[in-house]
Amino acid sequence: MRSLLYAILLCLSIPAYAFEYLQPLPDTPIIPDSNPQTPQKIALGKQLFFDTRLSGDGSTSCNSCHNLAASADSEGITKAMKARGIKRDAPSLWNIGHMSTYYWEARSPSLEAQAKDHLLDPRIMNMSSESQLVQRLSAIPGYRAAFKAAFMDEKVSMQNISKAIAAFERTLNTPDSLFDQYIKGDKSKLSKAAKRGLSVFKNKGCLACHFGVNFAGPAPGPALKMGDGFYEMFPTYRGTYYEDKYRFVDDLGRYHVTLDEEHKVMWRVPSLRNIMDTAPYFHNGAVNDIYKAVKIMSKVQFNYDMSESEIKDVVEFLKTLTGKYPEITLPRLPEAAGVNVVN
Amino acid sequence: MRSLLYAILLCLSIPAYAFEYLQPLPDTPIIPDSNPQTPQKIALGKQLFFDTRLSGDGSTSCNSCHNLAASADSEGITKAMKARGIKRDAPSLWNIGHMSTYYWEARSPSLEAQAKDHLLDPRIMNMSSESQLVQRLSAIPGYRAAFKAAFMDEKVSMQNISKAIAAFERTLNTPDSLFDQYIKGDKSKLSKAAKRGLSVFKNKGCLACHFGVNFAGPAPGPALKMGDGFYEMFPTYRGTYYEDKYRFVDDLGRYHVTLDEEHKVMWRVPSLRNIMDTAPYFHNGAVNDIYKAVKIMSKVQFNYDMSESEIKDVVEFLKTLTGKYPEITLPRLPEAAGVNVVN
Repeated sequence: MRSLLYAILLCLSIPAYAFEYLQPLPDTPIIPDSNPQTPQKIALGKQLFFDTRLSGDGSTSCNSCHNLAASADSEGITKAMKARGIKRDAPSLWNIGHMSTYYWEARSPSLEAQAKDHLLDPRIMNMSSESQLVQRLSAIPGYRAAFKAAFMDEKVSMQNISKAIAAFERTLNTPDSLFDQYIKGDKSKLSKAAKRGLSVFKNKGCLACHFGVNFAGPAPGPALKMGDGFYEMFPTYRGTYYEDKYRFVDDLGRYHVTLDEEHKVMWRVPSLRNIMDTAPYFHNGAVNDIYKAVKIMSKVQFNYDMSESEIKDVVEFLKTLTGKYPEITLPRLPEAAGVNVVN
Repeated sequence: MRSLLYAILLCLSIPAYAFEYLQPLPDTPIIPDSNPQTPQKIALGKQLFFDTRLSGDGSTSCNSCHNLAASADSEGITKAMKARGIKRDAPSLWNIGHMSTYYWEARSPSLEAQAKDHLLDPRIMNMSSESQLVQRLSAIPGYRAAFKAAFMDEKVSMQNISKAIAAFERTLNTPDSLFDQYIKGDKSKLSKAAKRGLSVFKNKGCLACHFGVNFAGPAPGPALKMGDGFYEMFPTYRGTYYEDKYRFVDDLGRYHVTLDEEHKVMWRVPSLRNIMDTAPYFHNGAVNDIYKAVKIMSKVQFNYDMSESEIKDVVEFLKTLTGKYPEITLPRLPEAAGVNVVN
């Protein structure tokens, strides 16, 4: 009898949306056991995120491309990266801790792994080796102290650098969008047009990939082990006018990682949160306008020509996914007194 | 009788240091009549400072190179800029409003003028024209509103862009160093070694150029009209071993602006404030170490070989010039909803 009562109470305490494909953004993403959040680690990660000395020539920080003052990332970074051989749209970092896999081609299983990967990629941060970076940061007394505070270990290591950056990135969340308020119960937060748009979004099949807390498929947790990843085919319907015009299949996505034929044009499902702020769109950043992007998605994924009013309604719905960006105070980077550590 | 009393009161109200070559940092730099500070203008200037859309390809903001999280500027930026044809050390922006001229070669008379010059320089921000920038910012509703709030004019213009950035830059000050506390009267703030270093600094002649509130010569105001500028010869003693080793005269400085023979190897006098944080040193960033920099300066400017103990004392004095950096909250940049404005 008592256990039945408990079961009923338990059910009542779980909000209905937990069983649905549509869910509000939780306060924090899933934190891996191997990298618990601490204020010291987050503070160190923030310093590292803004520090240009983490790049080979000392000119580029994480924030140079993933500009946290911008609601999107730097709009022009896609263009600039093309010159360096990366033909991908720079994804927004907001709510990034809710992803189940990293990079467009789903090549990195965790935020920790992608941080290390970025640092050593010659097209991105271009550190020549782990030891070059470790040596450089070790020469800065303030960093030695910060690593000790965060990891009980004054010794700077690539593993701890990656962990600290990942811990900071897990704080970059934009909760409390109109959609979040709506799904938590305040039905007035979506306009009639936005509600119609949500219906189209569900009924036409967008939700099949863009579901879960981040509209990007399952987040790590009960549904998915960290690192399992989630990716889908794009375009599904091949040979369209749009595919040709925007050169969507010039890049074969996950195939480049696995060389598995089945992974051709498979991509991580991008989040739709804050999508009004994240133009240009698609893995190659080829489309500048959200209305056009919705129209194209419908055609290349479902072979369906959305009507103008359906597109407008879907965009009205997408507008409700813009959350509240946190206020971020610039860290103060430690300096090696009277010495240049970038040589 | 009354006017004599006034005169006496006036003299008593002026602190003794106002008549000296050594002065504390005032709360704010001189504000030009043509560009008064307002909270709205400063807020807009801060947004523009952090916005990568102010560069041609949309990848670079003022903060990309003049990183306000760093106490210096990006240490590696000098190296990175060399690849673009600028063979100069990126100067720190802290206390920049106290300078009487801008750029190492003293080519810009005001912060407003240098902002515009940076935006259009193909090696720096690389906007192809004023109208390209104006058009891009005008497409962002949040900017139209911010320009209206700052300038009573919704119309975006290069002049107002430059004014807003300059207004923000005039807030980037680091007051209250140990030296400032000392010169205001608390004589305990300089150690014995630092006081010995200050004596060497005065007696050997460093103060002849590095004087005034910013240790960079006269600030605009009673002593100097805005735009008059202040620059000196470096090296003064030619043909030294150091000149050769660090290639100090490969670049002829102000001569490149005026083509006047007398301006060969003339340079703006750099500020010494926060110098412990601003390695590498000299116009070409060729020297990584402050002890070496002091030794070299003494030799090439005065043909004097400073003793090891004199150098150490001078560095102890220079350490007291590190001020208190303000806490800066990242601005939130306005976005054009669902549209990419960088094309």
